[in-house]
Amino acid sequence: MTPLKNDRFLRALLRQPVDATPVWVMRQAGRYLPEYRAIRSKAGDFMSLCTNPQLACEVTLQPLERFDLDAAILFSDILTIPDAMGLGLYFEEGEGPRFRKPLTTAKDIEQLSVINTEKDLPYVLDAVKLIRRELNGRVPLIGFSGSPWTLATYMIEGRSSRDFVATKRLLYNEPEVLHLLLDKLADSVADYLNAQIAAGAQAVQIFDTWGGVLTPPAYREFSLAYMSKIIAKLNLEAEGRKVPVIVFTKGGGLWLESIAAIGCQGVGLDWAVDIGDARARIGDTVALQGNMDPAVLRTSTETIRAEVKHILGRFGSGSGHVFNLGHGITPDVPPDNVAALVDAVHEISVKYQ
Amino acid sequence: MTPLKNDRFLRALLRQPVDATPVWVMRQAGRYLPEYRAIRSKAGDFMSLCTNPQLACEVTLQPLERFDLDAAILFSDILTIPDAMGLGLYFEEGEGPRFRKPLTTAKDIEQLSVINTEKDLPYVLDAVKLIRRELNGRVPLIGFSGSPWTLATYMIEGRSSRDFVATKRLLYNEPEVLHLLLDKLADSVADYLNAQIAAGAQAVQIFDTWGGVLTPPAYREFSLAYMSKIIAKLNLEAEGRKVPVIVFTKGGGLWLESIAAIGCQGVGLDWAVDIGDARARIGDTVALQGNMDPAVLRTSTETIRAEVKHILGRFGSGSGHVFNLGHGITPDVPPDNVAALVDAVHEISVKYQ
Repeated sequence: MTPLKNDRFLRALLRQPVDATPVWVMRQAGRYLPEYRAIRSKAGDFMSLCTNPQLACEVTLQPLERFDLDAAILFSDILTIPDAMGLGLYFEEGEGPRFRKPLTTAKDIEQLSVINTEKDLPYVLDAVKLIRRELNGRVPLIGFSGSPWTLATYMIEGRSSRDFVATKRLLYNEPEVLHLLLDKLADSVADYLNAQIAAGAQAVQIFDTWGGVLTPPAYREFSLAYMSKIIAKLNLEAEGRKVPVIVFTKGGGLWLESIAAIGCQGVGLDWAVDIGDARARIGDTVALQGNMDPAVLRTSTETIRAEVKHILGRFGSGSGHVFNLGHGITPDVPPDNVAALVDAVHEISVKYQ
Repeated sequence: MTPLKNDRFLRALLRQPVDATPVWVMRQAGRYLPEYRAIRSKAGDFMSLCTNPQLACEVTLQPLERFDLDAAILFSDILTIPDAMGLGLYFEEGEGPRFRKPLTTAKDIEQLSVINTEKDLPYVLDAVKLIRRELNGRVPLIGFSGSPWTLATYMIEGRSSRDFVATKRLLYNEPEVLHLLLDKLADSVADYLNAQIAAGAQAVQIFDTWGGVLTPPAYREFSLAYMSKIIAKLNLEAEGRKVPVIVFTKGGGLWLESIAAIGCQGVGLDWAVDIGDARARIGDTVALQGNMDPAVLRTSTETIRAEVKHILGRFGSGSGHVFNLGHGITPDVPPDNVAALVDAVHEISVKYQ
């Protein structure tokens, strides 16, 4: 493999010195880019794009052509694993993901098999290999998965949810059934991330989008414990380098100490957390990723620069910060504002190194 | 006025000794009760129910007939103030609140007038007086309002929102325009709560349902500052007793210290917070209200008792706790489970006094 030309992102995650704070954007390959929408309409539906390694590679690289980003992230969906388990993922335009066969009984859960990524999701690994080749050492490639809890909510509700009625009913009434599902998902996610690493992913992120809807003990038992299990199973060394793991629980700002203790190198922060407070709480053990409100990207260059300056100032001096949004970029953002963000981070952060 | 027969709720908010932990339930007069649905279908739409003092009184008292609750809360909607300002509140079945004339320009905001509750919302004050008479000292009556920030989001978005695109655009691009709106709303809310207190409300709660979608500095500037301004304007003494104020910011668990510092007597907690941690952080300055996950009410008596026991145990010994859910009760809860909750709180909490 070609040596990395820009390893700021990996160095910051290991809290090694960097020349400027690295930056990438969750969902950076997405609908806000006209060139993405062009490929998307060519591909047809969203899953046709995800399952085509050439197209997935192409859209993964699109934001890097426009912006001076410090990492690429595999273009895929967090629900590939449940799809591989047979639930039948599809997307209703403007409605988000749906499953044709959501889990409705304990028997449905008993019958699920842990996935074998090589066999069940070859298109993801082909995309990782292709992207690595096309990146040619420009920046590192991030692999990712949804967390077991987050995957479970979609599998049980059959779609995105607000109150998680069915999932919480299972959690409180038949916790052992939910544990069986989460255990199979944790084994599947570990296999999936290990396969991505073997195929060339140089860092991995676990997206725990819905961990924040739980109580503290339920979060520990039904989300954090399974992310901890996954990390223990990962082979976090590849090509002679450490492969860092980032854990991002949206709405998890109260639980940063326990998230930082499960063996990850980076903890993702949403915008409800002050990054200076987060650093005081856990920044001597892990790197922090985040945490600008995505809504700021709908404003102006001046406002974006002011917010970047505020966040960098709150983090303070020294390495250990990967700049990002506190959640995914929204489709209505003007691409020039992403350029303004990336440039502001690189320029303003130099004095903090 | 008849002296209060049960003042546990007021005593707990002032951290005075009680014989058992008081309990009420957010949205306790609501769709989960068949007798509520009966009145509601008789009244027609939701606003016809809110604006009819006799019917509002009747539904306010319904849960007290079934359960041994320690407080009544005025049956009304958080959006009465924007409605009185002329925005035209209505409800689409299953869709939540809508405004016929949402705020779309700075001029719309400039033209708004601060409300005069006596003149603009007499039906609310008539309901308060009637409920006090009908309660006849049984338990205290809670008055309430939405927070300025929360009201502003509905007024600008025109409806419930997920991303608050328009409100945040204003916040980041034209903060002075948003401040003008929030200032008018703070004056209106202060007038509204003072009028409710004068009419007989014995405690008031400010519902900051959407404060949690802000960054820490934006929360302080656009939500907390205005709740602080309101509290400073309230006449918190009536009938020779202190009228306590409860502030509840959903998703505000990271900011409890600053919420506790604005002069309120009680701070509401959602279920993401461990109430023992919250008490360690702020429990020597204010009372705490909360914080069971509403989803627990969809389970069994055993599970409800176990969760009540857990929360009471985490709060620990001594007064200063008002038991409640961490958000409103949902329409699918069996009423018997509310009875199980209320009884469990009263029984199990005796040993902690």
